Amino acid sequence: MAGTDKISRFDVIFEAEGSNTSKFRNDVKVHLRGPHPVSVDLPTDEGPLHGGDGTAPYPLAYFTSGLTACVMTQLRAFARRLDIAIGDIVVNTRCHWQAQQTGNAPYESAPIGFTMDIDIGGEASEADKRRLVLAAQKGCFVEQSLKPGLVQHRLKVGGSWVAV
Amino acid sequence: MAGTDKISRFDVIFEAEGSNTSKFRNDVKVHLRGPHPVSVDLPTDEGPLHGGDGTAPYPLAYFTSGLTACVMTQLRAFARRLDIAIGDIVVNTRCHWQAQQTGNAPYESAPIGFTMDIDIGGEASEADKRRLVLAAQKGCFVEQSLKPGLVQHRLKVGGSWVAV
Repeated sequence: MAGTDKISRFDVIFEAEGSNTSKFRNDVKVHLRGPHPVSVDLPTDEGPLHGGDGTAPYPLAYFTSGLTACVMTQLRAFARRLDIAIGDIVVNTRCHWQAQQTGNAPYESAPIGFTMDIDIGGEASEADKRRLVLAAQKGCFVEQSLKPGLVQHRLKVGGSWVAV
Repeated sequence: MAGTDKISRFDVIFEAEGSNTSKFRNDVKVHLRGPHPVSVDLPTDEGPLHGGDGTAPYPLAYFTSGLTACVMTQLRAFARRLDIAIGDIVVNTRCHWQAQQTGNAPYESAPIGFTMDIDIGGEASEADKRRLVLAAQKGCFVEQSLKPGLVQHRLKVGGSWVAV
């Protein structure tokens, strides 16, 4: 980058309208705001064994996809910006929480740890792939909203997984 | 609750398998692990104006629904546990991020603030509704994974919005 490149900022705003009338079904409409608005229905429900009717995905399923896909999108976008030649991307994420309750009182929940195993195809060097993963972390809107240190990343190098 | 009520813990684990072959479409399969497993396809894409094909929701749309619905689910579940009589629940969430870039280098993103406006119907007192919102915050797996203080909640009381 030339030293004279301009610093610029942009805002990203998503809004949700959720309604719940009785059981665990939540009707949720999500809107991307700004110059190119998009709206989508993303309802949720709990499964029958958690008291719901299983009419839609769990809220945490959306969360887990959102986190995974946000990092993947930045890997793809920033590979172009960094001119790093990559092939297919495969990411396996594990989100682990624990809840504690006394009797039947409301429980308190806490994240134990999230891991993302990232396999980037193509002939790019290990150094370039590491550089790309670090850039994707910093650019990922979801990850930057999480408690620092919560997500641990590993990169596939040869046949092994190495921490990034 | 009786003083002899037992403390118990349980784990919640969601895993995602994501793959991306070229553009911004991410095929993501999410699995709830544990005794009652469920799997669901939750692909993502960027809109045409962000370089994608608009074949699926944005990753941040899933995130915003997941956050909103997680709190709503706990409001419904914990109203029962706390024996607070409530009616319909309406939640409006706003997630605001900002990104900064130099020239065309990868940008760095940061959350500016998330707000949740919560309207709980029914005859429950303001004190009970506040107690319920506080319990839902502590029980919400998504919110407990976010940077502390990032989410601000307001409760509708009469015709006004008051901070919780």
